[in-house]
Amino acid sequence: MPVKLTAPQATSLLPVKGVQLGFAEAFVKKPNRKDVLVMTLAEGSRVAGVFTKNRFCAAPVILCKDFLAQSHDNQHRGIRALLVNTGCANAGTGEDGLHRAQQSCEALANLLNLQANQVLPFSTGVILEPLPVDKVIAGLPAAIANLKEDNWLNAAEAIMTTDIVAKGTSRKIQLSGKTVTITGMSKGSGMIHPNMATMLAYVATDAAVSQAALTSIIQYAVNKSFNCITVDGDTSTNDSLILVATNLAGNAEVTENSADFITLRDALTDVAIELAQAIVRDGEGATKFMTVTVEGGKNEEECRKVAYAIAHSPLIKTAFFASDPNLGRILAAIGYAGIDDLDVNTLQLYLGDVLVAEKGGRAASYLEEQGAAIMKESDILVRVVLNRGAENITIWTCDFSYDYVKINADYRS
Amino acid sequence: MPVKLTAPQATSLLPVKGVQLGFAEAFVKKPNRKDVLVMTLAEGSRVAGVFTKNRFCAAPVILCKDFLAQSHDNQHRGIRALLVNTGCANAGTGEDGLHRAQQSCEALANLLNLQANQVLPFSTGVILEPLPVDKVIAGLPAAIANLKEDNWLNAAEAIMTTDIVAKGTSRKIQLSGKTVTITGMSKGSGMIHPNMATMLAYVATDAAVSQAALTSIIQYAVNKSFNCITVDGDTSTNDSLILVATNLAGNAEVTENSADFITLRDALTDVAIELAQAIVRDGEGATKFMTVTVEGGKNEEECRKVAYAIAHSPLIKTAFFASDPNLGRILAAIGYAGIDDLDVNTLQLYLGDVLVAEKGGRAASYLEEQGAAIMKESDILVRVVLNRGAENITIWTCDFSYDYVKINADYRS
Repeated sequence: MPVKLTAPQATSLLPVKGVQLGFAEAFVKKPNRKDVLVMTLAEGSRVAGVFTKNRFCAAPVILCKDFLAQSHDNQHRGIRALLVNTGCANAGTGEDGLHRAQQSCEALANLLNLQANQVLPFSTGVILEPLPVDKVIAGLPAAIANLKEDNWLNAAEAIMTTDIVAKGTSRKIQLSGKTVTITGMSKGSGMIHPNMATMLAYVATDAAVSQAALTSIIQYAVNKSFNCITVDGDTSTNDSLILVATNLAGNAEVTENSADFITLRDALTDVAIELAQAIVRDGEGATKFMTVTVEGGKNEEECRKVAYAIAHSPLIKTAFFASDPNLGRILAAIGYAGIDDLDVNTLQLYLGDVLVAEKGGRAASYLEEQGAAIMKESDILVRVVLNRGAENITIWTCDFSYDYVKINADYRS
Repeated sequence: MPVKLTAPQATSLLPVKGVQLGFAEAFVKKPNRKDVLVMTLAEGSRVAGVFTKNRFCAAPVILCKDFLAQSHDNQHRGIRALLVNTGCANAGTGEDGLHRAQQSCEALANLLNLQANQVLPFSTGVILEPLPVDKVIAGLPAAIANLKEDNWLNAAEAIMTTDIVAKGTSRKIQLSGKTVTITGMSKGSGMIHPNMATMLAYVATDAAVSQAALTSIIQYAVNKSFNCITVDGDTSTNDSLILVATNLAGNAEVTENSADFITLRDALTDVAIELAQAIVRDGEGATKFMTVTVEGGKNEEECRKVAYAIAHSPLIKTAFFASDPNLGRILAAIGYAGIDDLDVNTLQLYLGDVLVAEKGGRAASYLEEQGAAIMKESDILVRVVLNRGAENITIWTCDFSYDYVKINADYRS
């Protein structure tokens, strides 16, 4: 069960002017479920994207990058639609996969009177299987028929794979005296690791934002959010985060130099963090949500190494599942994280606000009951203070349960 | 259940002249089990060791390294005994842990009429808990009372923690016309990762070998064996491999330049590989033994990255547990292994001898039934051909099952 995470109410996901969403049940893999999503964007919308660094990136990711690059040319008429399917990742599919992704874009473009390169495609699901593109295309008329702005919850449901709950959130902020809406949704719960997590996420705002500001914001936001989560250390072939600004809120255009820039950046980052954390809270088999903070490193890189050594350790994750304060496993992970000149005698390990270890061993003040009490909670902070410098990092992960094995041993069947 | 691994017969573990072994039931953690082992080495024995690179290395590891360094001085009388306890790792125990390890060496030295620095200490078990050194010391007289050369199986049992079966093997080889015996044993099944695996291993021979040759051989052997295995990617605090040569077989001393060097090196390496593979076959919860070979890399480092990305992926390991040929997960792991200029269109993936993927996607010749048939076996080869260079690497790992979670969620209780 997801850790302190429930699906949003339909009414709590606010429409964003200029973004319409429509879904279909196209039987891509399973019957009777929403599995195709179409999003249309008003003319003049600006779009930025960040994608997986996996070398086996999926065919739709290759097309997305290409079309986004083209969209910065004057010749291009702008990105006007997104097409998402679940049930098949269209990854590890070679030339044929590219062809099928292109076909799906062409089909939607024809129906919407667009060019194919104005449609960004996204797929998630099983790798190494051909995309049933005919089924996707057959679903498009139904999806177009129910396009509307107030349809984010249905959309969030349509992009789920092994997710248990739909993930979405909204904010309203003021920019130059105008009310601006931000709504985002995400999916993903396995094959989750930074660069990026296995996930799709879409965040839209009606704010007017320059392309440069939008690109700057997406990089900032992804590094504070989706690049700080891990479920199982597996970086997916399909990860994509898309940020859309429809330019319909009437605010003065936000540029990197305008006073509103930080306000908008932080609000979008806040949405990205909430969506990223929701993926971890809905991590496959998760029963605990773990925040891992590493402080006092010489640089961010070494903080990251320690944080991920802890977050990826199956021994630590199973101990958290068991609510067992077997905290020596955390020391072991700190020790093998790869900081060659780490002095284990000068660092501190805290669980919540309880000092567990210092001077190379268990803190004199530490009582097993304290650790046991904290381990029973569902949100747990692991804090390592390296005392070597001024850099900090925080990442989020979940525990490792029987159900993780069950879900991943059963996923294809 | 261990994968195609049964405990050796007592008679199949050959005595090594000059090495005596004795055990005790000392209740270090649990009653009614062998948990303290004493090994004595004949005067003139040579000893080499390789230890964990974990910065939180255990107190006994620190002492071992120190005493071994001292043993190369003329003043030192040579390493003459090993003392091993299971049930407590004496790691993450700071100054107090060092003091307790030293106490245990002094107690055994007193009973054997040695100096403390002639005794190498080893501990394995739970981290972050104080070593019950009084119990260890109280067990020493019983262990000394049953010291004998023909006691390797009892010894192998005395060093087990979550191991299901004892691990040991023997060889006889000819060196300069003399018969030389090699016997080794190992323990370990969780917190297993190279540099080194979480494990203890002891290999003894009665061959006469120079110290330089012994040191050269142990480095060679560990890189071909224990540094090529992983169960869960967790590098332990206590890993130790000890190689002993008692110099009693009557052969001409083996030096790095003698004709016998390669014969002895390869026989010892062969024993190390068998002991290392046994640890994987007895990996916590293992139901499959996986050999991962990566060929045709530009350098060993990139082969290693790909091999470990596959061997550490929980998604791949759970798919193997389920006998599900969900082989796209292997492509994903190859893609995120960290080779920045990898061309996914020129590599091949084989399962056993079946070509699964090439040209960036599923091979035209591949049939799901072929993959399904191989996945049902208990020993499975995953072979990646990068076609970028001439370097190869082979590592061994196991799958990820419910029982892995169960064992590690329950381990302390």
